[in-house]
Parts: sequence; structure tokens; C-alpha cells
Amino acid sequence: MQATWIWFPGDFELWLSAIVQNRRVERGQCNPPFWRLDRPAQIVVFEKHFDLADPDTVTISAQGECMAVIDDQPTAARVITLATGPHHILLRVYNPDTFPAVHVQGRHIVSDRAWTAGKQNGQCVPADAWDFTAPDQPPAAYRLPTTPQAAVTTSAGADGHSLTVDFGQETFGYLQLHRVTGSGALTAWYGESAEEAAATTQAETWDTFHFTNAAAADLTSPHSRACRFVKLTWDAPLTVGDVSMLHEFLPVPHRGAFRCDDAELNRIWATAARTLHLSSREFFLDGIKRDRWVWSGDACQSYLMNYYLFFDNALVKRTTWALRGNDPVEQHINTILDYSFYWFIGIHDYYQHTADRAFLAQLYPKMVTLMDFCLARRNANGLVEGRPDDWVFIDWAPMAKTGELSFEQILLCRSLETMTLSARLMGDAAGERRYRALADDLRRAIISIFWDDQPGALSHHRVNGHRHRAITKYANIFALSYGYLDAAQAAAVKTNVLLNPDVQPITTPYMRFYELDALCRVRQHHHVLQEIKAYWGGMLRHGATSFWETYDPAETGAQHYAMYGRPYGKSLCHAWGASPLYLLGKHYLGVTPATPGYQTCRVEPHLGGLEWMEGTVPTPDGDITLRVTRDQITVDTAGGDGGVLIIHSATAPASTDGVIRPTAPGEYALTLRPRHRHTVNYQAAG
Amino acid sequence: MQATWIWFPGDFELWLSAIVQNRRVERGQCNPPFWRLDRPAQIVVFEKHFDLADPDTVTISAQGECMAVIDDQPTAARVITLATGPHHILLRVYNPDTFPAVHVQGRHIVSDRAWTAGKQNGQCVPADAWDFTAPDQPPAAYRLPTTPQAAVTTSAGADGHSLTVDFGQETFGYLQLHRVTGSGALTAWYGESAEEAAATTQAETWDTFHFTNAAAADLTSPHSRACRFVKLTWDAPLTVGDVSMLHEFLPVPHRGAFRCDDAELNRIWATAARTLHLSSREFFLDGIKRDRWVWSGDACQSYLMNYYLFFDNALVKRTTWALRGNDPVEQHINTILDYSFYWFIGIHDYYQHTADRAFLAQLYPKMVTLMDFCLARRNANGLVEGRPDDWVFIDWAPMAKTGELSFEQILLCRSLETMTLSARLMGDAAGERRYRALADDLRRAIISIFWDDQPGALSHHRVNGHRHRAITKYANIFALSYGYLDAAQAAAVKTNVLLNPDVQPITTPYMRFYELDALCRVRQHHHVLQEIKAYWGGMLRHGATSFWETYDPAETGAQHYAMYGRPYGKSLCHAWGASPLYLLGKHYLGVTPATPGYQTCRVEPHLGGLEWMEGTVPTPDGDITLRVTRDQITVDTAGGDGGVLIIHSATAPASTDGVIRPTAPGEYALTLRPRHRHTVNYQAAG
Repeated sequence: MQATWIWFPGDFELWLSAIVQNRRVERGQCNPPFWRLDRPAQIVVFEKHFDLADPDTVTISAQGECMAVIDDQPTAARVITLATGPHHILLRVYNPDTFPAVHVQGRHIVSDRAWTAGKQNGQCVPADAWDFTAPDQPPAAYRLPTTPQAAVTTSAGADGHSLTVDFGQETFGYLQLHRVTGSGALTAWYGESAEEAAATTQAETWDTFHFTNAAAADLTSPHSRACRFVKLTWDAPLTVGDVSMLHEFLPVPHRGAFRCDDAELNRIWATAARTLHLSSREFFLDGIKRDRWVWSGDACQSYLMNYYLFFDNALVKRTTWALRGNDPVEQHINTILDYSFYWFIGIHDYYQHTADRAFLAQLYPKMVTLMDFCLARRNANGLVEGRPDDWVFIDWAPMAKTGELSFEQILLCRSLETMTLSARLMGDAAGERRYRALADDLRRAIISIFWDDQPGALSHHRVNGHRHRAITKYANIFALSYGYLDAAQAAAVKTNVLLNPDVQPITTPYMRFYELDALCRVRQHHHVLQEIKAYWGGMLRHGATSFWETYDPAETGAQHYAMYGRPYGKSLCHAWGASPLYLLGKHYLGVTPATPGYQTCRVEPHLGGLEWMEGTVPTPDGDITLRVTRDQITVDTAGGDGGVLIIHSATAPASTDGVIRPTAPGEYALTLRPRHRHTVNYQAAG
Repeated sequence: MQATWIWFPGDFELWLSAIVQNRRVERGQCNPPFWRLDRPAQIVVFEKHFDLADPDTVTISAQGECMAVIDDQPTAARVITLATGPHHILLRVYNPDTFPAVHVQGRHIVSDRAWTAGKQNGQCVPADAWDFTAPDQPPAAYRLPTTPQAAVTTSAGADGHSLTVDFGQETFGYLQLHRVTGSGALTAWYGESAEEAAATTQAETWDTFHFTNAAAADLTSPHSRACRFVKLTWDAPLTVGDVSMLHEFLPVPHRGAFRCDDAELNRIWATAARTLHLSSREFFLDGIKRDRWVWSGDACQSYLMNYYLFFDNALVKRTTWALRGNDPVEQHINTILDYSFYWFIGIHDYYQHTADRAFLAQLYPKMVTLMDFCLARRNANGLVEGRPDDWVFIDWAPMAKTGELSFEQILLCRSLETMTLSARLMGDAAGERRYRALADDLRRAIISIFWDDQPGALSHHRVNGHRHRAITKYANIFALSYGYLDAAQAAAVKTNVLLNPDVQPITTPYMRFYELDALCRVRQHHHVLQEIKAYWGGMLRHGATSFWETYDPAETGAQHYAMYGRPYGKSLCHAWGASPLYLLGKHYLGVTPATPGYQTCRVEPHLGGLEWMEGTVPTPDGDITLRVTRDQITVDTAGGDGGVLIIHSATAPASTDGVIRPTAPGEYALTLRPRHRHTVNYQAAG
């Protein structure tokens, strides 16, 4: 049997996320996260009892200093032969630098998740592991791979001691200088835009390198940076031969795909895939130039996009661990009220897509303590509102944030539903009853407190018992998506809010994600497709090679790059900009898990005005591939138990791959078999 | 003004104590502590608001990566000029390796305890500092000093490739090899006894060094070890020139002193001083060979000895921080029920000797949460008893440890009294009322539950409501010392327990500390002096150069060195062996603080059968020095408000330094003035 390195659950992620998130550097100094960033335990005890049918020889490797106690006897040996019979191995590992981990390899005895790990606080839990199997490659040696990337163009400056390189598109990695000769300083000014690199000291990031008597020296920067352009300026005595990039990336294939007859939409999808891939690294980062941090609200969207591109569970799990940190909970995740709730919602979505009970079991105690914290901070009315230390975010947009915000109650309610589901799966019947009652009560309270019959929408907030008339899109979008509205309320919200130009429009890709998702839920596929082309296409027309943190079509030129009062403060490669991946996969290819982990799937394609589309959606047990024209749908299913294809057709569809039954006017269903190609002839409506 | 390095309170100690306590190595492998050992925060924010009357230029130094934000503007500059007027400096420091700290030096603006420090958990507290003032010497550079120490004898082995060195007495430091030539391995086998070093692989500690083509090489071991003897064995091709020690020590003067006409007692005092000094290092350690850990019960005694030798407050504070760790409290300190209580008692004693309110203010929140933990673990009768994860220690001796132990209730009661005092000093009136009521109730319960009128003593324990008749010394000693017994009960305990040879005798210096302390409280100074000479003199007669972890006069030869089933498992330099320092200073020189911090002192000398004695007891405001013969007492007082000299005399004493008043038959009092020599002629009784 193959041993794996094991550690206390979460320690690998705490260690790695501190390194990753503290790489943020801006205008010449570091910028550490402003929330509590927890650390692994420095001493962990790993233990297991074995009963050997044959003698075995084990080799112990440790990340840190290790005390081995075999059958209650300390031993300094690291290769140990054990006789037939019962044995107990205890390994106490001290590591103040990274985190304690062990690797034990015998024929029968191997370190794996069946060992326990304890932080010496009276509790032991099953150890965690990933795919680190080599004893000489401990988990703290983990690094993302790199690959050389050449510049597309290199332009020498007129002054003779500067040049500008263009890598052709947004990239990330370590700048490489080749054949540098002489003595002096060289500064690399990075730019996500040509303007930013050219602005030198106004750029967000730069690196200065010093050379002494260099003779055709090669140098790789120790610092990873995000850029498309780099301007180099140097002291006159230096000469520079060439410049390239050592591109660093997460080695994960694009299992998801989308292609259609609209070339712009194809470019949008490809650019979204590039944007998500660049910001999917050790963790899901918000942006690769800025913040380079792990934000719960951003991550929650990245997870959903991930299910339509990589289906990388390990990355979702790493990010979930990194966000949560250790007990005691003293503040909201990222200090943001909404972001604690998105953490729960991300777990809900993860379970729906993966059915990974084992991860829920690891997390459940930390879910309980975070929910305890959230519930303890409710006001006398049983509702959450921002406390002095809380950041109430919702979105980058002008809005009132005082009092009881309907939006925050809806996110808490969804979090309570996640707890109900998790408690049920963990066999915690008392917890399930409690969370269900809390969720039911809160769902009723949301409608009774915030629903305004004139005009028929959820109000934005209530302050000191007074419900304000102001309406914003946020709460209405989420209430609709989570099914908290009845049919009449949903119809009212569609008309009065979603399609009402008088309600303050959303200008961040962040909330456009949920807005367009909701519009698709109310069958606005044509409209949403045009919105995607206008909004994301707009960025492409401005030269974007990855999608931005915010985008206001009304701005022009370098106005697009400014944010936070700085000319190049905006992130031009921001994960939440990649939502077309999710929208096109979920609502146009129309593939979703009908039961957790895609045990059964639901496929409901919508062309939304396209002539044809084809694509792939990954599942835990293979890919689902579709090709959809206006008169034929072909679905290749993955494993599992099959599922259902929903067909919107002007005429009764026909297929030799199963019986098609009508389900509603113009709507038909075909039962899908696993690992089978289904071809349906139909006639697209509209 | 001089700036100091500042950090989050406790971080320096958490960082340092992990390093120190993880230096324990035995029989070839590390031996990390088996309790949770907390870490500093990796990100700390330091802040202060200033209002400058003149412009100032500040230089910022950081231990870690620092983000400076001056008046809400991030700045990468580290030398910054600020104009007249209000300013706000915020420094966010990330340090995953040691701990975050900053040093800010201007003319007016300096980093000091007036800054706040926060762990980004919603709370800020005053920063802490020690005596690190140089910007280029950050606190993580802290190391104890060393000094060369030559061997007293060096004996070459008959085999030509071994030798044994004797440093003459117990020492601690880094072995140094001089003029090593050739290639091969050399092992140094350390021994606190000659037998241990000679036993090579049976020794507790050793180091192996490898040489390749060495040509008169000098080597200093990277590992500090405790020993008196070292046996070196090496591969034949090597030759070794000389061996010495780089002795490592805490640079603290011996302010306390004791000398008398009994040469053995003088040697005991000197050996106790050596024992305490060797084990007083970065922290008060239990022993320097083993465990090299910080144990609360051991530390509590070291604190009291410290007040009669070094009066090193910083060392007490460092140890108190190191023991406590971070919230949440999940187990007792060192996992031992009694050791949580000794932590409180050590703070009580610290305040009595120093009146250091500032330290209490730093600690108070952590005192409250540890007491919350202790109180939450009481049983239905409101009493503490060992839970499955708790170690109930009391002493190394056979005794029952099940059920409600009278000893543990007494320590909890004293801890509650410490909380009452601390709450009062912190102005926490509600806390004071609560803790006082809890202490009062518990004091009454202890007597009503455990006092046995036949024979008149506290019982050892109650199990399932049944008080057992068994009597041990522990509870009786502590109840007597803490004043929980009335006069009749105290007299009964003296006769039935303290002086009763049928009660199981105490054989560790650890509990002898409290036993002899109690015997002095009931005026058994002659008896205790003979006990000290017999017990500690016994170790000296066995060749001890420092005092041991345990001592059984009935054992012979190398039996004295065995413990834990290992022939040299016993620690031969154990802090708790140094109690004569405390006993002679407190009960013979008789100097104690009458009010906290020696604002007033009480001096009550007892010759205990000696012809004369002289000595010094340190106080926060200078030393108190005595010379006592059978007919004259001379006292030189320190600062403060003076105090009182209690004279036991067969005749009325006489002095020209004040009015002497009788206070009891054969007892007189002289009011002491500060910084004054008082001479009293009297006649020693008995």
C-alpha cells in the first residue's frame, strides 16, 4: 500500500494561505490581509493502532522534529521492524516553520486518513492528506509549476536604457532577464495595461534588481507578478539582452468547454476561462494583481464557475479551509458579514456538485462554531445587522447599509439551510431540527418584514422598526434564486425589479453573476445573452485579455484602469469577471446536478437566440457533452444513474434513445441513461 | 526619548518558550511538550495617534514585513518627516517566522507601551516591551550570554580514543572541541554524574560530530546540554586536542545572600543558589537536563525562591506568559489540574512582592478566561475533581487521586482569592463580588466536607459522597499556610499531621518546600533547620553540586540517579531542590513584604539554633540586610515606607533607633525607618 503524507486537517491550507496572501505588494511595500490569519499548530500528535498478521518494517519520515513512541517505548530509530500482533504508533512532531506532517511507509502499515491527528488540546480527529506520496517530497515543498513564456513584442526605448515588453495577454509569473552586462540598477514596472507599465512610479507593482559587474547574467525574479506589459528602465552602464516570463500556473485541465455560432461569445467564454484559470492558484484568489487574497464572496462564485471548467474539488476544499481559520471565531470571515454566509453557501454548492460527505464531516464542527457566532450576533428581533466591527459589503455600489438589510437575512437563511442539510448528513438530529426551525422562522420573517406589496418587491432595509421603501436588486435576486418567493412574488420581482430600468443598475461583474443567474431562472435567456455580449464583449472591445474587477461602459480609455483613487488601482484579471463560464454552462448548455454529486443530472439546453452551441460540463464521474442546434440535441451522458433532458420545442420531439413525455406546454422530458449518446430531433421555439 | 521594540503582549514569550521547551532531547530524539503550545499571531497591527508640537522625523524598523500607513496613506518610506499637528501611525507587520514587532524612533514619536497592538480580531491592547532599544537588535535576536569554562580534570582513556572531562560541578552550555585532527565520528556522552557519562548509550543525552580531514579544527556544539562530566569517544583516526565548555547563563546578579556559623548550611545555601541560577534561564525551567520545560507547579516555587535571590521580575513575567498561552483554554496548564491553580497563586505571590499592577492589567483577561474554564469544570457539588483528560499530580508519591481531593479545593480557593484581589485592583467590582463569594463558600465547604475531628485533620478525599479517613500532609500543609484553619485546627494539624511520623512522609524537595514552610509558620525553626541539614546536606554528602529532583536517603550509590525506569533518568539539577533559599530568607532572616511590593516590610529573624547569621533580601527599592547574633540584631532597611522588626527575646530589647514595644510574651516590635541602620540589643530565647 502507498503511504501519503498526513497532517492535522486545515494545517496545510493555513500554512499555504498565509504565504500566498502575504505576497500582495503594492507601490513598494507589502500589504498583509487585515483580518486574523490563523496558523497551524506547531506540535501535532499522529497515532494509530494496528494488528499485524505478518511482521512489517516501517520507515518514518517527518516534516519537523519527530518523537516516535512505538508500543509506549520512545525510539530514535526511523526504520523499525514490528512483529506480528498488536501495535501502537505515536508520532509527536514539532514544526514551528511550516506545519507538522508525517509519512510512514511499511508493507501493511501506511500513513493515511485512517490515522488520527491531535493538536494536544484533548481532541483527536482523522488526519488529512492530499496527493503527497513521496517521502522525500513533504507537503511544505508544494509549489505550482512554471513554464517559459516569451514576449510577443519587445520595443526598445529611445533613451537607450529602457524597453517595453508585451506578453500579448494577461499573465502571471516570474520575470526573467537574460544576458545582463555591467553594473547598476534595473527596475521592472509591471502593467496590466500598456498605460500602467508606461506610468512607472504610478504602476501598482515593480521590482528593482541590482547588478555588479554582470557578464551576460541571467536572472529570474524571486517575486511573482501579474502583468501583460513590463517596462524596464535601467542605469546607463547596464545592457539587457532579452526579457521573458516564467509563467506560473495551476496544472488543471479545462474539462468544461463551450462553442457556438457567435464568435464574440466564444471569445468571451475563452477569456473567462483564461481569467478563472489565472486566478485559480493555490487557492481561488480574487485577482492576480490585486488583492491576491482569498475572499469568501469571490470564492463562492469561483467555486460555481469551477464546476463548469475544472471541477477541481481539491481547490474548493483548500479555499474553504483557508477562509475559515481556527476557533474561536472572533470576527466574520474577511471581517465581512455577508462573507461568513457565503462560506456556508459555498459548502452547500460543493455538496450539491460532489456529494463529498467526508469533507462535510471534517468541516462540520467548524460550521457549527461559525454558525454559533453568527446566531449570537443577531439583534433582539432575531435578525443580523452590521456591528461596529463588521464590514457590510453586498457590492461596490452606493446603498444604505444601516439597520436590518433584507439581503443579509436571506444569506443567513440560506446558511441555516446549509446547516440543516449538513446536520442531517452528519446524523445530528437535534442540530437538524434546530437549524430547520431557525431557517423556517427566518424565511417567514423575511417576507413578513421586507415584502412590500406596493410595488411588489422586497425592500432594501428596516431601521429602528421602520421599513424603508427603497428597493435594490440584491435581496430580490437572492430570494428569487433560493426559492423564497411564491409564484406571484417571483413574477412581481421579475417585472418590478429585474427588468425595471428605474432600479439602480448593477455595475460589477460580481453582482451581475447573481443578477444574470436570476434572469435565466425566469427564462430571460435571450436578454441575458445580449447582456453578456454587451457587458463582457464591451471589455473585449476595450482590449481586455482577461475580465475586470468592475466595468462601466460609460468610461473611456485609461479611466477603466482607475480604482481606489489610484490611476491603475483596478484589477484587470478578477475571478468574479469570469461568470459567463457558469452562466453558459448552467443556463445555456443547461447542465446541473439533479441530485448531489451528479448521481443524476438535469440537462435543459437553451440556445437563447444562438443558431447552435456545443460544449462539455464535467461531473465527478465523467463529462456530459452536448451539441444543440435549432432542430437537434445530442447529449453524451457521464456515469451515475443518468438523469433527465428537458426539451423546449415547438413540436413534439422525437428520439430513438428513450420515451419522450410532455411535461408542460412546449416542454418535454427524456430520461437519460448513463454513458450513452442521446439524439433528439425537435424544433427550437422562438 | 528612547524607543523600544514593541509587540503584542505574550508574543515574545510564546515564541521563545516554544524554542526553549523544544530543546529537550533524550536518547537520540527530540521530546516535545505533550500539551498545546501556542504561537504568536503572524500579523499584528501597531497604532498610535500623536499631536506634534514640532515637526518630527521618525525611522521605522520592523521585525517582519511591514506595511506603514501614515495618516491613512500607505507609504513605503521608512524615514518619514511629519509636520506639526495631529498624526496617526499604523504599522501592519507580518512575520510567520518569529513574531511581529516594531521600533519607531523619532525625537517625540517613539514606540513604547503607550502604542496599541492588535491581532486583527477586533480587539486592541497596550503593546508590550522589554529592554530591547537598539533598532538593529530586534527581540528575536535575544540570546543568553555565554562564557568560556575550562574542565577541572581531563582523563585520557586507556584505549587511546576516549577521554573524560569533569567540569567540577553541574554546568550548562555548549561543548567545545579544540584542535581536532583527522576524519571520523566523535560522540560526547554527557553525564550529570560520572556514572552517567561513563555509561555512554545509557546516558540521557549525547551528541555525535563528524569530521573530514580536520586539521586542528575547533568546534562548538550547536546544542546546549546539562552535565558535570562528558565522556568523549571517537574513531581511531581522529585526535582531539582539548575540551571545554561555552557556559550559557542568565546574566542576573545574586542580590540575596545568607551566611551563618554553620558551614554545611552555608554550602547548602550556595548550592541552592547555583541550582536555581542554572535552572533560571529564558524561563524558570524545572531542570536543565530534564525536562527543560516550563511547569507551573515548579515555576510557582522558583518565583518564591527568586524573591530571595535575584528579584528578577522580568523572568517571573516571561514564565507566567509562557505557561498561559492563548485562549481558548481547552486543558489545564501543563494538563495538570493543580498547575492551573499554581498559575494563579504565582500571580498572587508576584503581586505581593512587586505591587506590579501593570502586569496584572495585562493578564487579567486571561486570568478571567482560565478561571471560567476551571469553574466550568466543577462537579455538581461545586468542587473540582480530575476529569479523564486531567493529570492530578500533587506529588510523586503513592496516594489516591480519585474523587474530590481536599488539596485541589484548597488550591482552587487560593486561586479564587487571587481573582478577588485582582478584580479589586482592576476596578472590576462585579468580578470582585463574584470571586469573593465563590472563595468564601468554598473555604467553608472545605472545612465542612473534609475536616475530621478524629484525629483532627483534613481528610485526603471524598469519593461518591463518602469521606475517606485517610490523611495525607498536602491539604493540611496548604490549609495551614493559607490561613484556612482556626487556631484549634491549626494546633491539631501541627500535632496530628506535620509532626506525626505515622503520616506518609514527603520525599520530594517539591512538597518539602511547602511542608517546611508550614513548619516554620508554626515556629519549628530548630526542627526545620535540622531537616534542611539532613535532607539537603544528605545530597551534598552524596557529592551533589546542585540539588536533585528527588532524594531518598535510604538509597545508595547510583540508585540515586535512576528514575522513570532509566538508570540516569533523574534530574540532578532541579529548581524545586533550591528551596533553602526561600526558607532561610523568609523564615530565618525572616524578611517578607508586609504590604504589596515591600511598600512596608516585616523582619522577624529566627536563629533556629544558629549562633549567628547575616544576609540580604532584595526588594523593589533596594536591599534589606541583616546581621543577627544571639544578643544583637542589625537591620539595614531598603526604601519604601519602612516596616516592622519583630524581636523574640528573653529580656526587653534595647535600641537607640526607635521605640520598642512588647507585642506578646517574649515578643517585641520596633518600627523600621526606610534606608536606615537599626541596631537592637536583645537576648535570643532558647
